[in-house]
Amino acid sequence: MNHEFYMNLAIDEAWRYQLLTYPNPAVGCVILDKNGKILSIEAHKEAGKAHAELKAVSKALKVLNPNLDLPQNANDLHEFICQNHQGLLKGASAYVSLEPCNHQGKTPPCAKLFSTLGFSEVFIATKDEHKLASGGVEFLKDQGIKVHMGICEQRAKELLKPFLKWQKSSFKFFKLALSLNGSAYGKIVSSKASRTYAHALRSKLDLLVVGGETIRHDRPILDARLAQAKAPNLCILSHQNLESFDPNIPLFSVPEREIFTSIPSKAKFIMYEGGENFLKAFKDELDMLLIFSNSNLNTLENVKLDLKLKPLYKGFLENDTYGFYEIIKS
Amino acid sequence: MNHEFYMNLAIDEAWRYQLLTYPNPAVGCVILDKNGKILSIEAHKEAGKAHAELKAVSKALKVLNPNLDLPQNANDLHEFICQNHQGLLKGASAYVSLEPCNHQGKTPPCAKLFSTLGFSEVFIATKDEHKLASGGVEFLKDQGIKVHMGICEQRAKELLKPFLKWQKSSFKFFKLALSLNGSAYGKIVSSKASRTYAHALRSKLDLLVVGGETIRHDRPILDARLAQAKAPNLCILSHQNLESFDPNIPLFSVPEREIFTSIPSKAKFIMYEGGENFLKAFKDELDMLLIFSNSNLNTLENVKLDLKLKPLYKGFLENDTYGFYEIIKS
Repeated sequence: MNHEFYMNLAIDEAWRYQLLTYPNPAVGCVILDKNGKILSIEAHKEAGKAHAELKAVSKALKVLNPNLDLPQNANDLHEFICQNHQGLLKGASAYVSLEPCNHQGKTPPCAKLFSTLGFSEVFIATKDEHKLASGGVEFLKDQGIKVHMGICEQRAKELLKPFLKWQKSSFKFFKLALSLNGSAYGKIVSSKASRTYAHALRSKLDLLVVGGETIRHDRPILDARLAQAKAPNLCILSHQNLESFDPNIPLFSVPEREIFTSIPSKAKFIMYEGGENFLKAFKDELDMLLIFSNSNLNTLENVKLDLKLKPLYKGFLENDTYGFYEIIKS
Repeated sequence: MNHEFYMNLAIDEAWRYQLLTYPNPAVGCVILDKNGKILSIEAHKEAGKAHAELKAVSKALKVLNPNLDLPQNANDLHEFICQNHQGLLKGASAYVSLEPCNHQGKTPPCAKLFSTLGFSEVFIATKDEHKLASGGVEFLKDQGIKVHMGICEQRAKELLKPFLKWQKSSFKFFKLALSLNGSAYGKIVSSKASRTYAHALRSKLDLLVVGGETIRHDRPILDARLAQAKAPNLCILSHQNLESFDPNIPLFSVPEREIFTSIPSKAKFIMYEGGENFLKAFKDELDMLLIFSNSNLNTLENVKLDLKLKPLYKGFLENDTYGFYEIIKS
């Protein structure tokens, strides 16, 4: 198979954790042994946890030596691997969607990991423009590792878009859940897997933005219970004062929740949830749409607005399809 | 990676040619060299052309020896490979979605191909219940090849469903093209790639079934021009006589086209095309739905009917998502 095949595996794996890595970028990594056999396909899953490269290296070593008892903590894991790799990955190659970092952040530098383990080739989809973390390519080359740049670069840049937006200012996306025939109404539109992913996203947000109409009508709690994680702070956009809402609506009883009535400037990772009217009102502010479509047809009205979309990634969650879309300005 | 990973690659590749192989089953095959490196991912693409196994073996040999000048014709190809494989695939393994055939049909037996080339392991998702072609597993075992059965068997059985239906009686499916918000109307709903696939399907059909309403309204030609292939025979289901239609509607001028007003019993591979009303009228006769969804929202009415669907496979064609669905009877 060609290099694009392996890089696409890395990029697809990274998309599965897109946004969940906030404030870090989504990154994927595939490792092949010296004979070209795939050992691991991994991604960075959460800030503070192992980078994609460390995750993929760990998995690869575990495949080659199932008796290895690897530490959980990313720093300990990095250290342990550098001491106990037994030369198992000598001559291996890695496909990474983003230039491996070259600095000691919350975790040690990944470029050094590849050289310590004796990798012979590293394929990189796109450079890290982040000043602090960059320099991985130069380091790898200095260590005599063959580096190949720009494999699937377009897709890798799309993968990085949310990261670049929240680094620079803020990233705003709208979550919409539809039936296969485009209705946004009715009971529990999405699969359990889709709703769990949406709850995991909520737990990472700086802010969840909702409309007064939804709150009055659905009386939601808007927490992250399916992901067993922290409920997000809210911004309620309404023509009416917060005092006018029924205080027994469950979202008002979530502990330690801050509720705003306009978007505070410190919020950098923002999700909008709602239906047709809310989307119509805020479509011009959005960086992306996240749309879940289930596999059922029903007799309900569809969401109606003219919006040409460019899919950046589509995936499956149980019987649902979901996609990240950019709006094509006409 | 585990065996399921490779078998899923084989099965996904086969789904890309689902129905196009009529009257043969859709089959996929992945070949790894003796060290576990992927050499090829291939599928059977059209009746009379190379089986998935022969296709994958050819590709694998070409990867290992790019100078090989392989014949086009499946029989010549099989013969050439048996003479000129140079032991390049000794110790290789194959993942096949269906038991390799053991008989001389239009093409020579695939089980023998694996043994001639010195494969050491063959992974098979599901057995071939077709009396004439079966026996591949026993043959492989007799030749000392390790055979592993039942990897991803459920998915492999789903892949075979159309084949088993048209073998037994007939296979009927409905093609529906929607916008992301479920409207079936408006100009050219689907991507070029989706429409080309739909035209390729049309060229393989025994019969394309359409309603009188569509014909009067759209005045279509219903040919297979995007696939540069043969236009299908038609069945026009209408309350009115054929004579009452405007003879200048283009579909009536397609050369060598037979037009029926009821489904002839010899038709075994049948596609219905239409919108909401046509689907409502015939949903109880269908084995599957093939639904294309594009990536745009619009302001048109959606298709409205209650239908719970189970996706068997979903894939992408340019910016569209498409899926094969079974109807869940409630």
